[in-house]
Amino acid sequence: METQPPPPPTGLLRGTTHLFPLRVYYEDTDLSGLVYHANYLRWFERARSDLLRLLGIDQRAAAEAGEGVYAVAELNIRYRAPARLDDAVTVVTDATELGAASVRLRQRALRTDGRGEELLAEALVRVGFISPDGRPRRQPAAWRTAFETVLAAKGAA
Amino acid sequence: METQPPPPPTGLLRGTTHLFPLRVYYEDTDLSGLVYHANYLRWFERARSDLLRLLGIDQRAAAEAGEGVYAVAELNIRYRAPARLDDAVTVVTDATELGAASVRLRQRALRTDGRGEELLAEALVRVGFISPDGRPRRQPAAWRTAFETVLAAKGAA
Amino acid sequence: METQPPPPPTGLLRGTTHLFPLRVYYEDTDLSGLVYHANYLRWFERARSDLLRLLGIDQRAAAEAGEGVYAVAELNIRYRAPARLDDAVTVVTDATELGAASVRLRQRALRTDGRGEELLAEALVRVGFISPDGRPRRQPAAWRTAFETVLAAKGAA
Amino acid sequence: METQPPPPPTGLLRGTTHLFPLRVYYEDTDLSGLVYHANYLRWFERARSDLLRLLGIDQRAAAEAGEGVYAVAELNIRYRAPARLDDAVTVVTDATELGAASVRLRQRALRTDGRGEELLAEALVRVGFISPDGRPRRQPAAWRTAFETVLAAKGAA
Repeated sequence: METQPPPPPTGLLRGTTHLFPLRVYYEDTDLSGLVYHANYLRWFERARSDLLRLLGIDQRAAAEAGEGVYAVAELNIRYRAPARLDDAVTVVTDATELGAASVRLRQRALRTDGRGEELLAEALVRVGFISPDGRPRRQPAAWRTAFETVLAAKGAA
Repeated sequence: METQPPPPPTGLLRGTTHLFPLRVYYEDTDLSGLVYHANYLRWFERARSDLLRLLGIDQRAAAEAGEGVYAVAELNIRYRAPARLDDAVTVVTDATELGAASVRLRQRALRTDGRGEELLAEALVRVGFISPDGRPRRQPAAWRTAFETVLAAKGAA
Repeated sequence: METQPPPPPTGLLRGTTHLFPLRVYYEDTDLSGLVYHANYLRWFERARSDLLRLLGIDQRAAAEAGEGVYAVAELNIRYRAPARLDDAVTVVTDATELGAASVRLRQRALRTDGRGEELLAEALVRVGFISPDGRPRRQPAAWRTAFETVLAAKGAA
Repeated sequence: METQPPPPPTGLLRGTTHLFPLRVYYEDTDLSGLVYHANYLRWFERARSDLLRLLGIDQRAAAEAGEGVYAVAELNIRYRAPARLDDAVTVVTDATELGAASVRLRQRALRTDGRGEELLAEALVRVGFISPDGRPRRQPAAWRTAFETVLAAKGAA
């Protein structure tokens, strides 16, 4: 390309809430014509990674240095309405609780296509920091501090 | 091939419990070296589809005829231990409750590699029957009857 | 959300060349720490779908009406350099040949992270229009006309 | 489980040809009702990994020791007929050329459901051994020796 490439897609913070837009592609659907249920988990993970990046947390450096990675420890999801090809979706993420070795988040996928909003799926997720051998480990202090800035006010979520 | 192909892999029923063996491949892992969390949902879905097939339920015919499909309505999963490349895994499925339009199942992934068993993840899943436009619908009577044969005895699961 | 959601990510046309930005997430990687090779095909498909959308072609309506879908008929890909978590990538697509029932495209994935560009993978793809039963079919006239507007000048690609 | 789990699925060697059976699940399909094109690459990779395991090559140990991994360098695939949910498929793999740092293979996916065979897709794949930083590296001598035992006779593939 002779000129600048378009900027990579990114989410944004509104107060302590993280918004991450995406579109539904063929790879997301199955023969029912609807989005395959496991793919919501991929969307939620993209949103969490984008949130970390916005907070200045470098997951790749931590993984490559053998420090550790975040891994989902628990996830409760309810599917409310089906999503289809080409739908515009926003993943809305709120951090609700911060522990020494883990973070709890509430994540929702909304269809946001200009005709209002419709809830597609909502989840409660607990993510733990683990060492390369898979054991729980205290998350880096800087990461904890970063997360505190987006912790939803008590009762807010 | 001049001769018979090997038979496709399949699970089996032990009493009312369904066992589905699989192996961990590159596609299942992520840069942490462990299995990506969303892929357990794909494994659980494979096991449910295999169970349906063993019960004589033809999902593809029902989908192609526009009758409907099963879709996950709710899923609660806890990750207990990480799985790695080449691990032998067994998905253990028990149907625990049968409704007019839905089924509840308990599903576990165990590492079963000859050195005993280790629980990797366990989930409670509610699967609903839906019409092609995504609305809940009573499941076919024959499917309900088939599921009754594997319904875990009360208190068993 | 009380306010407007962020716009969904989208690619853009520069002359007849389509540019589609994306970022590498956990789901894209495998235990090597690099992007799993099959996932480049998902990226290329996202870019083609985005190009169709920009050309005013409604794939979902055609699929739901039973008219047909595009399906990859042939794909030759060379992997040049590995991509890693968090990399900013641009998929560059040029349509090179238009037939009655198929389109040929050249697609490349470039790392575009501000330090210049690096070729990650390049592919030649032939996409055919097929009926719901999987047979080749002439593509809709309006789709053909739309594709003509982005056909790379002869010898350009 | 009180009793033995079922054995994990595996492929087998017939002469120098590797056969790997699998079944099509929901995760493999997209809204066209057919198998999503990128998923054939996942099937082919499962088959190659199974072949390596049968040859006594321990990919995981090599990856964890930082020795290196196989990565696809080049892949040419033609899609011949669509696969659908529940289809029984056999992936047929022949190693056709062995280099210092790479292996060439021919891989085909056949529908093998008792009514004969139908070619679904065929590919030529070049797989290179790479170090953890992504550079080409000579493959371990023991791996090369193992591959020689399954190298198709000249002109056979």
